[in-house]
Amino acid sequence: MNDNTVFVYDTTLRDGAQREGLNLSLNDKLKIAQRLDDFGVHYIEGGWPGSNPKDADFFRAVQTMTLRHAKIAAFGSTRRKHADTASDPNIRALMEAQTPVVTLVGKSWDLHVRDVLETDLEENLAMISDSVAYFKTQDKEVIYDAEHFFDGYKANPQYALLTVQVAAQAGANCVVLCDTNGGALPWEVGRIVREVVERLGETAVGIHTHDDGGCGVANTLAAVDVGVVHVQGTINGYGERVGNANLCTIVPDLQLKMGKQCIPPESLQQIADLAHYVAEIANLPHDTHAPYVGSSAFAHKGGIHVAAMRKNALSYQHIDPALVGNEQRTVISELSGRGNVLDKAAEFGVDVDSEEARAILQQIKELENEGFAFEAGEASMSLLLRRMKAGYKRPFEMLDFTTWISVREGVPMVSDASVKIRIDGEVIHTASEGNGPVNALSLALRKALFTKYPQLQSIHLTDYKVRILDGANGTGARVRVLIDFEDGDRRWSTVGASTNIIEASWHALVDSYEYALLNGKS
Amino acid sequence: MNDNTVFVYDTTLRDGAQREGLNLSLNDKLKIAQRLDDFGVHYIEGGWPGSNPKDADFFRAVQTMTLRHAKIAAFGSTRRKHADTASDPNIRALMEAQTPVVTLVGKSWDLHVRDVLETDLEENLAMISDSVAYFKTQDKEVIYDAEHFFDGYKANPQYALLTVQVAAQAGANCVVLCDTNGGALPWEVGRIVREVVERLGETAVGIHTHDDGGCGVANTLAAVDVGVVHVQGTINGYGERVGNANLCTIVPDLQLKMGKQCIPPESLQQIADLAHYVAEIANLPHDTHAPYVGSSAFAHKGGIHVAAMRKNALSYQHIDPALVGNEQRTVISELSGRGNVLDKAAEFGVDVDSEEARAILQQIKELENEGFAFEAGEASMSLLLRRMKAGYKRPFEMLDFTTWISVREGVPMVSDASVKIRIDGEVIHTASEGNGPVNALSLALRKALFTKYPQLQSIHLTDYKVRILDGANGTGARVRVLIDFEDGDRRWSTVGASTNIIEASWHALVDSYEYALLNGKS
Repeated sequence: MNDNTVFVYDTTLRDGAQREGLNLSLNDKLKIAQRLDDFGVHYIEGGWPGSNPKDADFFRAVQTMTLRHAKIAAFGSTRRKHADTASDPNIRALMEAQTPVVTLVGKSWDLHVRDVLETDLEENLAMISDSVAYFKTQDKEVIYDAEHFFDGYKANPQYALLTVQVAAQAGANCVVLCDTNGGALPWEVGRIVREVVERLGETAVGIHTHDDGGCGVANTLAAVDVGVVHVQGTINGYGERVGNANLCTIVPDLQLKMGKQCIPPESLQQIADLAHYVAEIANLPHDTHAPYVGSSAFAHKGGIHVAAMRKNALSYQHIDPALVGNEQRTVISELSGRGNVLDKAAEFGVDVDSEEARAILQQIKELENEGFAFEAGEASMSLLLRRMKAGYKRPFEMLDFTTWISVREGVPMVSDASVKIRIDGEVIHTASEGNGPVNALSLALRKALFTKYPQLQSIHLTDYKVRILDGANGTGARVRVLIDFEDGDRRWSTVGASTNIIEASWHALVDSYEYALLNGKS
Repeated sequence: MNDNTVFVYDTTLRDGAQREGLNLSLNDKLKIAQRLDDFGVHYIEGGWPGSNPKDADFFRAVQTMTLRHAKIAAFGSTRRKHADTASDPNIRALMEAQTPVVTLVGKSWDLHVRDVLETDLEENLAMISDSVAYFKTQDKEVIYDAEHFFDGYKANPQYALLTVQVAAQAGANCVVLCDTNGGALPWEVGRIVREVVERLGETAVGIHTHDDGGCGVANTLAAVDVGVVHVQGTINGYGERVGNANLCTIVPDLQLKMGKQCIPPESLQQIADLAHYVAEIANLPHDTHAPYVGSSAFAHKGGIHVAAMRKNALSYQHIDPALVGNEQRTVISELSGRGNVLDKAAEFGVDVDSEEARAILQQIKELENEGFAFEAGEASMSLLLRRMKAGYKRPFEMLDFTTWISVREGVPMVSDASVKIRIDGEVIHTASEGNGPVNALSLALRKALFTKYPQLQSIHLTDYKVRILDGANGTGARVRVLIDFEDGDRRWSTVGASTNIIEASWHALVDSYEYALLNGKS
């Protein structure tokens, strides 16, 4: 730790879980906590033990984990109005969580004190002071979250300041100013935080922002710029409404642009993986266009950008993508020149000359017109490049398939498929049941392939996405299927398109196995 | 127009189209231009006529459109080094676009002049000056985009300033400072823009930012705060790499928080629709968590937030969602209390008491455990509420279905389905072909329903999404299907889950028609 240290407080497991569409099991929460600790955050807020049984279970289970970097924090509100602190149910739930850190949230905005707490301004100050002081007598590190601080300050600056001074006087180790509604602007945040930092003197000040006005990250940075040493946020910016400030943007900004020290520099190279891992566990699609960590964050599409990048890699990138574990990519589309195809072929290790590049571009444009999208199915793109080369021989040919599904009253659902392929002149005909038509097809195809390529048994599908392309045609519309496969460390994605979801899936399945056979599995 | 006016320059059709995964047809571009004009932006950048034939076609086609608010701008670079301006191919392409506005991009960063243009600093100044002056002699409004201005300023402030002074002296109507790599921080932008505004005096100054550091919106706002009167951005923040500054965030921020005038206030209420419309045309999923315009932007999930909102609507919202054409929503999940269910039931007009709310919460948790996600399938949720009420009678019952697909060498693909349902005690058995199994099923189901409910013929499916839930099980995994339907103005979404994609689709299809029959189609 040095003067430049900014402490990172992750609240993915508590505030992040309030995102619409996000639902974490106990096991998910433990996996994410382990990963956050490996990454090197200073605090992990595990949940609100007083609010639901899963959060209480988390605090029991996390005690058996060995953490190398992070302290676990339990979150809860100050005592109820006119209640005895030690016997208040929420305060007791926080004690029972047995964490080294307790984060207490209290009101700064007079409107909330009157309309939501339905009490007077004096009693709110006592609730803050009593609650903070109680946990200090219990040897806890206490973080005080001043909810709605900026709105409160704008409505009644004296009272808002008083609430945080009371928390500091009661012994809070850090006072965190929260822009709970997410509507503040960076220069307001800078001005108000500067005043609080001066007023509180020795007490550390932190910041907690939301992205409702699109300034969540900038507001956090503005606060650090005027003296804040503790930042709260979530992985991928998950959170209530629009979301919390995104730590996957804030940490690289602080460390690479502002010269602050948050996590070990070698950890920063894990941040793209961390973002994907948490999205995976959360079962949410990863934001491909997220700053720093999105798969498109360093993807170049315009022909003029690609041409300039071939001359100077820094000409259209704000940082070296390797610093955050990401990579520069070239995207091929109708906006591409041949430079894009040549870059891509080099990436795949396929030797393509300028004339071939022109023919490949042409075919890509035709297939994209039919609904394929090679930007998201790069393994299919690499097969397309290889298949254009004279003398390429497919490791297997697909001939026929049939699949059917039947649902009848009182009878368990049936799904069945038959597949015919040819390998080295020999026709192989297999059949399989499955718990769905694509599953039945995939199992029949695997059965056929394993007769000649037993090494394929280790690969498996990890994601399957379907997108309708021309909504106006209803269920008769063209669909695009994207399939992700993996084999230990390697992952690849293939694409198929058709008006028939099964046929589109079939194309993507066939590409996946062909790609596996060409890349280390033959 | 008054002193508070900030001009909005939309570059969705040019810079936006550089987003990975985005591909706009000529017709798409014309539709978006029409909608942007209706919305009230001041400028629409249509493309780069020198770079591809589709953009040149756009400028021909757009001349036949009647625009009420916007001027069309053609984008291109300054003349080539040591070339004659009037005969330079790019300059000619810009003239041929026949637009009232020409936007010229030139270099500000000495690194780019040397490494990318491969010329000397003097010649670059002449390229800027000659090109701007040429279009002024042709009676064009000239906007000068200073590419990489902030990086250029940091590397060589004198030279960067010189490039924009030269553009202003040659007659540019507006000089736009571009953070092309998207890595600047708001206080740097504020400081540098302030200096340029002072230097340029009478010439209007604009801003063009990207979101690579997560500060695209904040950087634009910071520039307006110090005197910029022209903002460039894209709808939904589409653009190269991470994307451009998002006009759907910037315009509400400027107008609702900074007191600026960009578009008519009644237009602002159309901005959520605009964002969805452009996503639809671009065939990209709408960002549900986008500030202001995302469907989750005012969605409240935490039980404590919902309880507070029931007391005071402004307690957890930064603005009234109606100002941007969005709405407050309550989300039901395991984090919910009964308050969430009661709010939701009131939203749907279903009368639910406290005891029923508890039972409904329980059933929601069980179904979500099986893979349903009611947050995204609200029509299915409303049916769930209704089906829990005693005396509810389904308008039709599903009995059996079978569907099959066959692909054989040299034979066109076949997809067929049969469906058996019961309406008022009568069994109806239908069959249909389709161009895919879900389509065949849907057509057979419609055929059966139309015998009793001909009014359903006007509803149709608009989106169909599939998500695998437990990737580790490969194609045998549980899948969730979300289906969007519409009927003129109304849209609704249903959800189904199963290990069988066809069965999951079937559940969602059945819900869609049942919902339609209960809501105005019975």
